Amino acid sequence: MAVYTKVSAEQIDAFLTRFDVGTLVSAKGIAEGVENSNYLIETTQDRFILTLYEKRVDPDDLPFFIAMLDHLAAKNCPVPPMIADRNNVKIQELCGRSACLIKFLPGISVTVPTAAQAEATGRALGDMHEALKDFTGTRPNSMNHDTWRQLAKDCGPDELDAIASGLHDLVESELDHLDAHWPDDLPQSVIHADLFPDNVLMLDDQVTGLIDFYFSCTDVRAYDLAVTHSAWCFSDDGSQFDANVSTALMRGYLETFALSTQECAALPILARGASLRFMLTRAYDWINTPADALVTRKDPTAFLKRLTFYQNNPDIFNR
Amino acid sequence: MAVYTKVSAEQIDAFLTRFDVGTLVSAKGIAEGVENSNYLIETTQDRFILTLYEKRVDPDDLPFFIAMLDHLAAKNCPVPPMIADRNNVKIQELCGRSACLIKFLPGISVTVPTAAQAEATGRALGDMHEALKDFTGTRPNSMNHDTWRQLAKDCGPDELDAIASGLHDLVESELDHLDAHWPDDLPQSVIHADLFPDNVLMLDDQVTGLIDFYFSCTDVRAYDLAVTHSAWCFSDDGSQFDANVSTALMRGYLETFALSTQECAALPILARGASLRFMLTRAYDWINTPADALVTRKDPTAFLKRLTFYQNNPDIFNR
Repeated sequence: MAVYTKVSAEQIDAFLTRFDVGTLVSAKGIAEGVENSNYLIETTQDRFILTLYEKRVDPDDLPFFIAMLDHLAAKNCPVPPMIADRNNVKIQELCGRSACLIKFLPGISVTVPTAAQAEATGRALGDMHEALKDFTGTRPNSMNHDTWRQLAKDCGPDELDAIASGLHDLVESELDHLDAHWPDDLPQSVIHADLFPDNVLMLDDQVTGLIDFYFSCTDVRAYDLAVTHSAWCFSDDGSQFDANVSTALMRGYLETFALSTQECAALPILARGASLRFMLTRAYDWINTPADALVTRKDPTAFLKRLTFYQNNPDIFNR
Repeated sequence: MAVYTKVSAEQIDAFLTRFDVGTLVSAKGIAEGVENSNYLIETTQDRFILTLYEKRVDPDDLPFFIAMLDHLAAKNCPVPPMIADRNNVKIQELCGRSACLIKFLPGISVTVPTAAQAEATGRALGDMHEALKDFTGTRPNSMNHDTWRQLAKDCGPDELDAIASGLHDLVESELDHLDAHWPDDLPQSVIHADLFPDNVLMLDDQVTGLIDFYFSCTDVRAYDLAVTHSAWCFSDDGSQFDANVSTALMRGYLETFALSTQECAALPILARGASLRFMLTRAYDWINTPADALVTRKDPTAFLKRLTFYQNNPDIFNR
């Protein structure tokens, strides 16, 4: 990942005069997040992330994200609120992009989570779901279950088979299975929908930040746990399942949020759905991104391996 | 610019245990510097830059850079010293790269310098030259005057003309002129050789850091002032010369370092050389870098315009 929009120090300095945050001391373009441009800003008072929203984030969605983060921050969830300027405006414009000044949170993103880290993340996710119970905002999930068949079509059968032999047939068969069993009647809620280790900041075994809410949306709540499970409980390439991490993640979540029997029973199918969703979006990006582009392509087969695992181990959530 | 080598938080955490610098609190890949990978690191004690040296920096040159920075830091020049580990080792290895932990310096790099900022930079450059008078280290300039004709050949005549009509002939004629007039007999010294605004950190009108010493080398000392002049006194695209910035830069330098009459007299030819050098290296990169590569290509004609300006205004340094 890279910085897409170059903002000069003079421009950042002028931008900060809209706020009551002190004057600029340091500004470094940082390489992280979804496809936005991010600067780590230090002022005489504090540190901030300055985010310029590039094509993947629709500026019309920013009020929803801000309301969600304000709601979570008010309930002491460790999320990074957007800073209001002197006129109480949070959505700014800078260099022709929508831009927000965001509170900096300390913490690092782990790459190979320990059980203790997964348990803390499960608790943070449960706390977030509890806090969102009375949040009234809604946002459609543009990558929900209903969209996956079209996404597979947009990839193309030959292109899928080029990624892994027989992948097209496997996807079609999985889509049929998910259509037949998808639990649309389960409780819906606003969810994070992308709580990968990248998007959790930790110090030791404590969660200090949940970040990158730009996929947040309304969907089956337990699906959020399934996404998190698929993201945390496997080696990066999907080849190794870590049962201890899985048990710890589930224990942490269930300590803070009470899943119904129906929700628990649906986890295997939801995890298959989560695996298919990330496999398909990665496959789409893989097919449509030049190998030497700015964006690092993520291997779709890492989530094909997770899908296969969930297919073969439907009892994994009962352990 | 981008982060080339991905280092996990766990790897950085383990790396920091070699040092007496506290434990990791935050790590962000930052997009700056020459083609190295840089992380802005916060520990429980302080902030640092972690640099992994990619192909452009020869690990064998690191002892020279470290000695130079230590020498300058000991004389209170605002440079970022490399941090020694518990065994007094500064050159580390991380992820298969040579790596150094470097003191973080506050300050921002200006894009459009004011006269006051240029004057402060001139003073900082003069102070640096004064401090380096008794520095005994040496390093050949791999891009010195003797290399430019070969560099032009490596670009290719047709490729140069594709950048600007008639460029190949102009370069050949300029090379002849420089060969006839290059002042090899002027005092030599270790110089920065790349003191663009990018490589100077400032707070208000004060220089807080001189950074990115990876082109530092032994060469004609006044050439360093000529490089700095060409980098600071023009609009980015080279089309506008700023006489006030030029006067201020020269005043600041001459306040802190006494140039001889011979050095002053050579500045026009040295500035033409500096312009040709950056024009040729940018042209070479332009010709050999795909337009969609990770590295942003810099426009060679911005230094062609500077060269033309210096050709037409040989008295600019007398004002």
